[in-house]
Amino acid sequence: MASVKKPIITITTDFGTADGYVGTMEGVILDIVPAARLVDISHEIAPQDVREAAYILYSVYPFFPSHTVHLVVVDPGVGSARRPIALRTSAGTFVGPDNGVFSYVMACEPVEAVVELADPRYRLPQISYTFHGRDIFSPAAAHLAAGVPISALGPPVLDLVTLSLPRLEITSASITGEVMHIDHFGNCITTIGKLLWGEDELSLEPAFARMRRAGEKQMRFQALGARVAVGGMKVTGVRHTFAEVDIGQAVAVVGSDGHLTISVRQGDAARELGLRSGDEVVLEVAC
Amino acid sequence: MASVKKPIITITTDFGTADGYVGTMEGVILDIVPAARLVDISHEIAPQDVREAAYILYSVYPFFPSHTVHLVVVDPGVGSARRPIALRTSAGTFVGPDNGVFSYVMACEPVEAVVELADPRYRLPQISYTFHGRDIFSPAAAHLAAGVPISALGPPVLDLVTLSLPRLEITSASITGEVMHIDHFGNCITTIGKLLWGEDELSLEPAFARMRRAGEKQMRFQALGARVAVGGMKVTGVRHTFAEVDIGQAVAVVGSDGHLTISVRQGDAARELGLRSGDEVVLEVAC
Amino acid sequence: MASVKKPIITITTDFGTADGYVGTMEGVILDIVPAARLVDISHEIAPQDVREAAYILYSVYPFFPSHTVHLVVVDPGVGSARRPIALRTSAGTFVGPDNGVFSYVMACEPVEAVVELADPRYRLPQISYTFHGRDIFSPAAAHLAAGVPISALGPPVLDLVTLSLPRLEITSASITGEVMHIDHFGNCITTIGKLLWGEDELSLEPAFARMRRAGEKQMRFQALGARVAVGGMKVTGVRHTFAEVDIGQAVAVVGSDGHLTISVRQGDAARELGLRSGDEVVLEVAC
Repeated sequence: MASVKKPIITITTDFGTADGYVGTMEGVILDIVPAARLVDISHEIAPQDVREAAYILYSVYPFFPSHTVHLVVVDPGVGSARRPIALRTSAGTFVGPDNGVFSYVMACEPVEAVVELADPRYRLPQISYTFHGRDIFSPAAAHLAAGVPISALGPPVLDLVTLSLPRLEITSASITGEVMHIDHFGNCITTIGKLLWGEDELSLEPAFARMRRAGEKQMRFQALGARVAVGGMKVTGVRHTFAEVDIGQAVAVVGSDGHLTISVRQGDAARELGLRSGDEVVLEVAC
Repeated sequence: MASVKKPIITITTDFGTADGYVGTMEGVILDIVPAARLVDISHEIAPQDVREAAYILYSVYPFFPSHTVHLVVVDPGVGSARRPIALRTSAGTFVGPDNGVFSYVMACEPVEAVVELADPRYRLPQISYTFHGRDIFSPAAAHLAAGVPISALGPPVLDLVTLSLPRLEITSASITGEVMHIDHFGNCITTIGKLLWGEDELSLEPAFARMRRAGEKQMRFQALGARVAVGGMKVTGVRHTFAEVDIGQAVAVVGSDGHLTISVRQGDAARELGLRSGDEVVLEVAC
Repeated sequence: MASVKKPIITITTDFGTADGYVGTMEGVILDIVPAARLVDISHEIAPQDVREAAYILYSVYPFFPSHTVHLVVVDPGVGSARRPIALRTSAGTFVGPDNGVFSYVMACEPVEAVVELADPRYRLPQISYTFHGRDIFSPAAAHLAAGVPISALGPPVLDLVTLSLPRLEITSASITGEVMHIDHFGNCITTIGKLLWGEDELSLEPAFARMRRAGEKQMRFQALGARVAVGGMKVTGVRHTFAEVDIGQAVAVVGSDGHLTISVRQGDAARELGLRSGDEVVLEVAC
């Protein structure tokens, strides 16, 4: 039942790129499905930081074709009883450890099937105790990309591990979240999202909708009238683009993933403003 | 009018590889042109350093097939009025912001066509204000690689932004330039090029020929008789290879891109000699 | 005589990923063999560290199909008289400088053919003195991957350069080796291998078997009864997995390549225990 579409597998790990671990996984994959397209998402997830991997995956998967297999190996529990799983949604198939790394995807996409990667036919013949990325996850991703149905890989899983929700508290006057990710440029991406532009007005459609309480609902506010408090500092207005402030100035924008983002134009906001992951961010909306 | 050759797209950015930004672009490209070969040139351009990206691109593009599309996203003006462009030469097609990043290519290759990436059919349906690499440049590169003619993407551009020339001053006794790029090994690549070997003699064919003044012309000199002054130091002779000096010694060679390069054999010239980008380099030629 | 299998070329260098050197090599390869799959193994080999490259290659090649061409450019002697070579085994074909970088592969796999890359038809038309990765090794790898027989590339080589053996001393009571590689997580991989699990017993099958003296032979011992002395510290027992000790504890495991590895659960063993490459490691086996 091979797919007629070109198989695509993305790879996200905390392995770094120095040791050949990722290359080894790619060798295993190409041995099973020679036609696969392999796309590196990131191998610089902080070691064993499942939450960071969950965020990166959440920001990336919507831009891939739905037949893509997303392989994630951030796996502090390798060798323990944590299960290896595969998970299918209409937006993509996901392979990795059952440690919550798919929580943010699952909060956006209905899950059609989840299985434990138990069938030895879809593993390497020898399984090490320390590198399931090579021995279990890569072969599973390869076989799925080649068209093997997910149900063939093992029995259904009913009790997935999930992460707690990223912080997002909504009142009539403010939205409170925190810095969720600091990128290569020092942009501070917050949990406040997704924000959608409508002329000069913003509307908030709480991210990870399937995980949110019913009480949190969409709100609208004037972008330029809002104020962002973060790290003892206030930034006035949410802007369309960095270019609306002078070089070196702090600015709040809607990032490319729809989340409120604190930046410094042509600078490094995290360093210059002293911000870190977990710092509280309050968006005061003057409704 | 799809190309019969395998589409190739190279990608050069200042995005780093930690955040999934490059992977996202690759997802967008593969969704449009599943057969594309994607080649990472560098994602470690210093943030917003258009000139460094221009140099790297100049050193790389000649080694790719002429049907290659070179996608460059080093874009300090994202979200401002700077135009997104595509540019065709007989040596390759180039896609990126109109900020001068293609200046060094244009100084070597006649431009056959330049257009603004204006047609919404060749963009993503939704355009963010901060990630045109994903929303505008990647789709354009993908469609071009798939064989869409450049004229379909938008109207011609007649007034491209260009960078000033890299320093290269030629007298009868010396050639003066500066350190243009320091590579991973600490090799200091200068603006003095291109140098061509003819036995023990070197000839200079000023780089970026189409940008140079007519007064600068080819010169010849004895390689071993020349002296290179840089950072308060003099190195005697231009050598064929590092191996002509002892380990740990400074040496001037003709680099792999034809530019005069200051190295330390099995060492890091930039660190050991205290050299930086922009440092003056004088090649005294005893004609 | 083109191969019917999809050509695969892996690339291992000390070039880093900032300067476009690897991308340039990929352009050269794709120009010759457009269908090639290119897999980056590592570009972060310490500059000119032939031994580190030899180890990484040794740990990676067994997981690739046997028609793969492994291209390695860690080449302190570029431009000198050191020969460029290609080497065929039943487990893969290898291309790089004759400086010992293939020693560990050759210690595991019988060599079927070795040639010097001398034929100009399989090089770029112009050869620089400093970038044979682009001008000699990449074209050779591409032509080999495309199905050119190795004998066409040049004359046989009979006197290959080889590295000395990694340290491994075996007595009836202990096995002495050293730290051979420290990975991204700080895991300290030693020369003591390969260790094979049999229930709670380990057997040692000396690594690089073809290089070892006949006197070194297989031994068996109880895993939990063994003690590992390293850096003034003793760790009791060799475990199946990190998860057998508490978070933050040191642990000795059999790594994914079969070598004894010193780790800290969810920590960085090299940093926390102060270990470095070359540190002596003694595995005391209470037989």
